[in-house]
Amino acid sequence: MTSTSSPVRVQATDAVDQPEPSAALDTLYRAFESELLVPLWTEIGDLMPAHPDSSALPHLWRWRNLLPMAAQAGELVPVGRGGERRAIALANPGLGGRPFATPTLWAAIQFLKPGEDAPVHRHTQNAFRFVVEGEGVWTVVNGDPVAMRRGDFLPQAGWNWHGHHNLSDRPMAWIDGLDIPFQHHIGSTFFEFGPDETDSTEAPASSRSERLWGHPGLRPLTHLRPTPATPLLAYRWEHTDRALSDQLALEADGHRATVEPGHAAVRYTNPATGGDVLPTVRTEFHRLAPDTGTRARREAGSSVFQVFEGTGEVTVGDTSWAVARGDLFVVPSWQPFSASTEHGLDLFRFSDAPVFEMLHLDRSVA
Amino acid sequence: MTSTSSPVRVQATDAVDQPEPSAALDTLYRAFESELLVPLWTEIGDLMPAHPDSSALPHLWRWRNLLPMAAQAGELVPVGRGGERRAIALANPGLGGRPFATPTLWAAIQFLKPGEDAPVHRHTQNAFRFVVEGEGVWTVVNGDPVAMRRGDFLPQAGWNWHGHHNLSDRPMAWIDGLDIPFQHHIGSTFFEFGPDETDSTEAPASSRSERLWGHPGLRPLTHLRPTPATPLLAYRWEHTDRALSDQLALEADGHRATVEPGHAAVRYTNPATGGDVLPTVRTEFHRLAPDTGTRARREAGSSVFQVFEGTGEVTVGDTSWAVARGDLFVVPSWQPFSASTEHGLDLFRFSDAPVFEMLHLDRSVA
Amino acid sequence: MTSTSSPVRVQATDAVDQPEPSAALDTLYRAFESELLVPLWTEIGDLMPAHPDSSALPHLWRWRNLLPMAAQAGELVPVGRGGERRAIALANPGLGGRPFATPTLWAAIQFLKPGEDAPVHRHTQNAFRFVVEGEGVWTVVNGDPVAMRRGDFLPQAGWNWHGHHNLSDRPMAWIDGLDIPFQHHIGSTFFEFGPDETDSTEAPASSRSERLWGHPGLRPLTHLRPTPATPLLAYRWEHTDRALSDQLALEADGHRATVEPGHAAVRYTNPATGGDVLPTVRTEFHRLAPDTGTRARREAGSSVFQVFEGTGEVTVGDTSWAVARGDLFVVPSWQPFSASTEHGLDLFRFSDAPVFEMLHLDRSVA
Amino acid sequence: MTSTSSPVRVQATDAVDQPEPSAALDTLYRAFESELLVPLWTEIGDLMPAHPDSSALPHLWRWRNLLPMAAQAGELVPVGRGGERRAIALANPGLGGRPFATPTLWAAIQFLKPGEDAPVHRHTQNAFRFVVEGEGVWTVVNGDPVAMRRGDFLPQAGWNWHGHHNLSDRPMAWIDGLDIPFQHHIGSTFFEFGPDETDSTEAPASSRSERLWGHPGLRPLTHLRPTPATPLLAYRWEHTDRALSDQLALEADGHRATVEPGHAAVRYTNPATGGDVLPTVRTEFHRLAPDTGTRARREAGSSVFQVFEGTGEVTVGDTSWAVARGDLFVVPSWQPFSASTEHGLDLFRFSDAPVFEMLHLDRSVA
Repeated sequence: MTSTSSPVRVQATDAVDQPEPSAALDTLYRAFESELLVPLWTEIGDLMPAHPDSSALPHLWRWRNLLPMAAQAGELVPVGRGGERRAIALANPGLGGRPFATPTLWAAIQFLKPGEDAPVHRHTQNAFRFVVEGEGVWTVVNGDPVAMRRGDFLPQAGWNWHGHHNLSDRPMAWIDGLDIPFQHHIGSTFFEFGPDETDSTEAPASSRSERLWGHPGLRPLTHLRPTPATPLLAYRWEHTDRALSDQLALEADGHRATVEPGHAAVRYTNPATGGDVLPTVRTEFHRLAPDTGTRARREAGSSVFQVFEGTGEVTVGDTSWAVARGDLFVVPSWQPFSASTEHGLDLFRFSDAPVFEMLHLDRSVA
Repeated sequence: MTSTSSPVRVQATDAVDQPEPSAALDTLYRAFESELLVPLWTEIGDLMPAHPDSSALPHLWRWRNLLPMAAQAGELVPVGRGGERRAIALANPGLGGRPFATPTLWAAIQFLKPGEDAPVHRHTQNAFRFVVEGEGVWTVVNGDPVAMRRGDFLPQAGWNWHGHHNLSDRPMAWIDGLDIPFQHHIGSTFFEFGPDETDSTEAPASSRSERLWGHPGLRPLTHLRPTPATPLLAYRWEHTDRALSDQLALEADGHRATVEPGHAAVRYTNPATGGDVLPTVRTEFHRLAPDTGTRARREAGSSVFQVFEGTGEVTVGDTSWAVARGDLFVVPSWQPFSASTEHGLDLFRFSDAPVFEMLHLDRSVA
Repeated sequence: MTSTSSPVRVQATDAVDQPEPSAALDTLYRAFESELLVPLWTEIGDLMPAHPDSSALPHLWRWRNLLPMAAQAGELVPVGRGGERRAIALANPGLGGRPFATPTLWAAIQFLKPGEDAPVHRHTQNAFRFVVEGEGVWTVVNGDPVAMRRGDFLPQAGWNWHGHHNLSDRPMAWIDGLDIPFQHHIGSTFFEFGPDETDSTEAPASSRSERLWGHPGLRPLTHLRPTPATPLLAYRWEHTDRALSDQLALEADGHRATVEPGHAAVRYTNPATGGDVLPTVRTEFHRLAPDTGTRARREAGSSVFQVFEGTGEVTVGDTSWAVARGDLFVVPSWQPFSASTEHGLDLFRFSDAPVFEMLHLDRSVA
Repeated sequence: MTSTSSPVRVQATDAVDQPEPSAALDTLYRAFESELLVPLWTEIGDLMPAHPDSSALPHLWRWRNLLPMAAQAGELVPVGRGGERRAIALANPGLGGRPFATPTLWAAIQFLKPGEDAPVHRHTQNAFRFVVEGEGVWTVVNGDPVAMRRGDFLPQAGWNWHGHHNLSDRPMAWIDGLDIPFQHHIGSTFFEFGPDETDSTEAPASSRSERLWGHPGLRPLTHLRPTPATPLLAYRWEHTDRALSDQLALEADGHRATVEPGHAAVRYTNPATGGDVLPTVRTEFHRLAPDTGTRARREAGSSVFQVFEGTGEVTVGDTSWAVARGDLFVVPSWQPFSASTEHGLDLFRFSDAPVFEMLHLDRSVA
C-alpha cells in the first residue's frame, strides 16, 4: 500500500457514547471481569484510532551525554558471560521505562575497552552495529572477523554466532540496533550461548564475507541460494560516502538521482535479493546538502535516527531539536518528520518498515 | 526455518551475575534513569530467554458462560455508531486485563439481535468471523452480502468496508478473530466510518465473491492480479466438512492424506495465491477421528482454538481441560499443545503464523 | 509488460539497403561462409521484424474429419510400448510438415479402444488432456486413477508417471496438449519408460488428487509446499460450467464478472499458487452468450482453441471460419483473434502465455 | 530441479516398431498428410529422446580468424540505418546455416571504426556486450553513455533505446550476445527505430547507471521498484578480476569460496533482485588457476564461451580444442563440458539457463 489520502470523518472512536449506566450493566461488567472478558465498546477509542497513535514519544538522546556514561560503565561493569554485552539502551519515555526506543526497535550504545571480549552467543533477534566514531573492535560472525570503523554499517542477522573483541589499545563505542521489542512482544526469541572467548584472533582489514560478496553485481557461484538476511557483513563507509556524493553530483548535472532536491539517500540491501538487509529492520543513510530542507513526511511504522556528521534541525511531530554528531532520536509511527541544515547533515536511520511492508500495512503521506 | 533441536547450555540469561554494588554504580544507574537509559545486563533474562517465554497464559473460556453474557449485553448495550460492534473480547490473564487473547490476536463473541445493524466501517486490522451455531446475519463487504451459517468461515481483510445486519427473527452470535493486539503494538492502525446503515438489504444464499471465486482451481479472467488477502468471502461448511471426511477416507484406504493418524486438517487459503487468507492471520480446521490423540507440538507463535463439535481433552503446557462445543482456548508461543478424543473432535484454529513465517521467525518441534 | 501502443516508423528492417556488390564483398561473404559466420545486415529483416511475424499460419482442423481418421488408426495401428500413444498431431502448414500446431505447442487427437492400455512413461514435457466427448478412459498418474469425461480438463505436469487405459466397452477419443515443440527447440527433453501395464485397475469416480485438492480455498496440511505445477489432476466440467454460468448471471445483475459483455472466461489454476496449471502452458475456458461478439485482440504468443459446444464464427488474421463442436484452430503470435456467435459458443483454449510472462515478453493490444 | 540420476531403460524411443505396412495404412498416412496431421508413433524418437539431443553441434571459432574478417567488413560494409549494426554472427554447423550459435543464443563480433555511429534502436531481444580487447566505443542506453573497455560486461535489456559510437581514433571490436534465436522461435520480437544519430556526445569514464547502482549492497532510494533486468549498465573488469582473485585467495586460506579446487566463478546479477542480469540470458565469468582441471558437467540448456585470457584445453562432448584469447565455442544442451589449463585460463560464459530455471526445466549432472 502506498500513500493515501483518507479524509476521516469528524466523529472519532475515542469519544464513544457509552451505554446507559444501570445496576444491570454493572452486574454484567463485573461478570465480564470475572470471566476475563472485555467489551469492545469501552476500548475502541484506544484500539481503533483513526490513524496510528503510538504511546512512544518523540525523544532525543545527546551523544555528548551518552558516551561518558558508557565510559563510566566501562569502569564499573565488567563485560562477560551472563550480561553478555556492555550495552545501554534508549528507553522511550512513553513506553513505561522499558529499554525500548520504539515498540519494535532497540537502540543501545555498546562500549568495549582494550583487550575486552564480548562472548559468543546467538539469538533470533536481528541486529546491526553502526559506528559513529572510533575503531579497533572486530565483530566475529560465525568465525569471520569483521573490522568496525567509523561510518561502517555491520548487519548481524538472527541466529548467527557472534562475539566482539577489542584488539586495539583504545576503548571503542558504537550503536547496536535490534528488533528486541518486536520479538519480545510476539514471543519469537531463542537464545544460545557459544564459547566464552571470541572464536578468532585474526584482525584482517576485510572480512571473508566482503571478499565473497562485496563486488557490485557479482555473485559467487558457491552461494546461489538466496538467504533472507544479507550475507555481506560490512557495508564500508567509503562506498556509502561515494554513493551519496554520486547522487548529489548527478543531481547537479540535471539527472534524477535524489529523493528530493539536495537530499541523497541509499538503502542498505541484501545483494542476494535486493531486499532489506534484515527481515525485520530497514537501514538507510541520508545526506542533506548544505541549505537543504526535507518535506515533512509521515509513515506508518517507527524509526530511530543517528546523526553521523554535520549539524541541523530535526522536527518530529511538534518537537524540534538542533542536532549534532552522534545524537539519536526517535520518530514514532505516523509522526511527521522533517530535517533541515545550513552546513550539511548526514543521517543514519533504521526502522521497522520491512514488517509493515511484508504484512501489507505500510502507508505514508508526504 | 523448520524444526530444530537446540541444546541450550545450563547457564541461563535469567540468572545473570550483576556487577558489584557500589556508590559509583548507584550513581551511574541514577544517571541512566535520568537520561532514559536502561542497561542490557539487568534485563537480558527477560528480553533474551533461551526460548519464547510469553507472558500470555494458557486459558479456557466456556461457551456456555460466554453466550448468556453476550445475550445479556444484547439487552443492555445498544449496537451502533461509535461502539460499532457488540463484541466481547477474551482477555488473557497474563496480559494485564487488556482485551487480548494473545499478544497478537483478538478473539471476541459478537451478538446481533433481529433487525439490528452493525454500522459500516473499515480498518487496517485483518478480521474474520467463524460461526459455531446459528444463522440469520449477513455480513456485507464492499456491498456484497455474505450469509453466515454454522460452520462457515468468513474472512474480512483489512481496509474493506463492512457492516453486519440480522435479517432473521432470531438473535445470532459468532466469534470474531482479528490482529488488533499486533497492530496496536506496532502502530499500524487506521480506521474510517462508513454509512450508518449497512449498504445492502439483499439476502442471497451465496455471495458474489463465491460465485466468482468459489469454483475449485478456476479463476475469473477479470481478476488476475493477486491480492494479499483472499477475494473469497465465505468458506462454507459443506466444503470444509467434505475435505476433512475425504482425508480420513483416503487415510483409511492407505493413502497419505492426514497430518498424523486420525488427524485430518485443512488450511483456509487465498485461491489467488495459495497462501494464507489474511496477511497476519492463519486459519485452519482440524478434525480428530474417534479414539485419536495428537502428538504434543510446540510452535513459536500463538493460537486460539474454538471447539466446533464433539468432546475431548486438550492440553496446553501443564494444563488440561475437557472441552465441548463452542469452548475457546489459547495456546501461547512455544507452549506444547495436544488434544485427544474418544468420540471425535472438530477444532477451528487461528494463529499469527504468517507473521512468523514472513519474518523468518517460525520454529516448531513435535 | 501489458498492452502498449508502439507507432513503428515506416521504414522496416525487411527492406534493408545492402552494401555495394563487389568482388571483395563476394570474397568476404565466401570467407564468412567457410568460417560458419553470417552477417546481421542480410538477416535483420527476418530476425528483427517490427512485430512478431510467425511462420506459423492460422489454420482450422474439422473434428468431423479428425475423429474418423483416429478411429481408422485404431484399426490399423496398435498402441503399446515404443510408439507409446495412438496420438495424431496437428501439423501447422507454415511449420514445414512437423507435428507442431504452433512453434511452441503440440495438439493431437488420441484414441483408445475398449480394453486398451497406453503404457506408463514419464517425460519433461508438460501435458494435459481435454475431453470434448465420450468417457470410459482413466488416466493413471503416479498410481492415482483419474476418470475422463466430457468437459473435463486433466493436467499432467512434466516428469510424472502416467498411463491410460480404457475400462469401458466403447472407444474414446480426446485431445492432448503439450509443449513438445518448445522443449524440442530449446533441448530440455528427458524421457523414461515405466511399467508396460498401467499401474492400477481401479475405476473410482473421483481421483485422490480431487479428494485432497478439489475443495475451494481449502488446502490439505499435508501438502503445504507449493509445487510448480498443479497437484489437482482433474478440473470437472460441472465446476467449469457453473463458474461460467455464474459470471453471466452476475453480469446480468449489473456486476463486473465478465471479460467483456456476454463473454465469460475462467483460467485453470494451480490451487497451491494461483498460477497457471503448468509451467509452460496456460489453459482457459471461454463462453460466449448468444448474440455476442468479442473484440479483436492481438497477443504475443500462440494459442490453440477447441470448440467445446455451440456454433459461431472465428476470425484469425484475415481468415474466418464457421466452427462447430470439436473443431480445432490455431492463432499464431500477434495475429488478431475474434469470435462471434448467434446461439452461444463454448471455447477451450491453451497457449504458451506462461513462457512469455515469466520472461517478461508478454504484450497485447485489443 | 537439480542433479538427478535417471537410469534409462535400454529400449529407446528412437527405435520404435512401426505398424505392419499395408495398403490401408498407406491410405491412412496419405489422409493424414492431406489433413495436415502427423502421427506421434513415427516421430517419437526425435521428439521424445531419453535425454536432450540437440541438433546444435559443439564448435569452435578462432578469434584470430574472426577479427580480420570483421576488420575487412569494416572496409566493405557501411554501418547505418537499416542494417543497423556491423555484426557478424556465429552459425552453428548443426542449425542449417542460420546465424544461431545455439537454438536459443546469438553470438556475434561487432566492429566499429573511428567516428562511426551505430544508430539508435530498441528491440525486445535481450542483449549484452563483452569486450575481449580494445576500447574507445561508448554504448549509449536511454541517453546514458557507457564506456566499453577490455574485460567489461555491458548488459542491455530488451526494449531500451541504444546506439554505439566510436569516439576514439582506433577501430574497436567486441562480442554481442542476444536471445535472438529463442525469441525468433517463439515469436516475441518487436523492434523500433530511434534517432539516426546516437543521442549523446559525452564520453564520461563512468555511466550514470554505475554512479547510481555500482556501490555494493547500496540501493538508491529513488529506485526501489525491482526491474526484471539489471539497472546497472556496466560491470567493470576491475571488480570481476578482484572478485575472482579474492575467491582463489580465500580458497588458499582454507575457506569455501570456489566451485571446485582452483576454479573461481562469479555470476553477473541484477543488484535490484540478486537474479540474472537479463530475463533470458545468464552470464558468468570463470577463472581456472594454473594446473587446474574442472570436472565434466552436463546441463540441460546451451552455452557460449569466450576465452578472455590464458590458454588451456576445453572438451565439449567428444571434441577437444586448445584455446587462446578471444576464441569462442559452443556447448549444446546436455553435452558434457570440461576445461583444464597449465598456465591459467579466464572464461566468459553466457547461457539460456534462466529460461530453463523459470520454467522448471533445469537439470544437471557432474
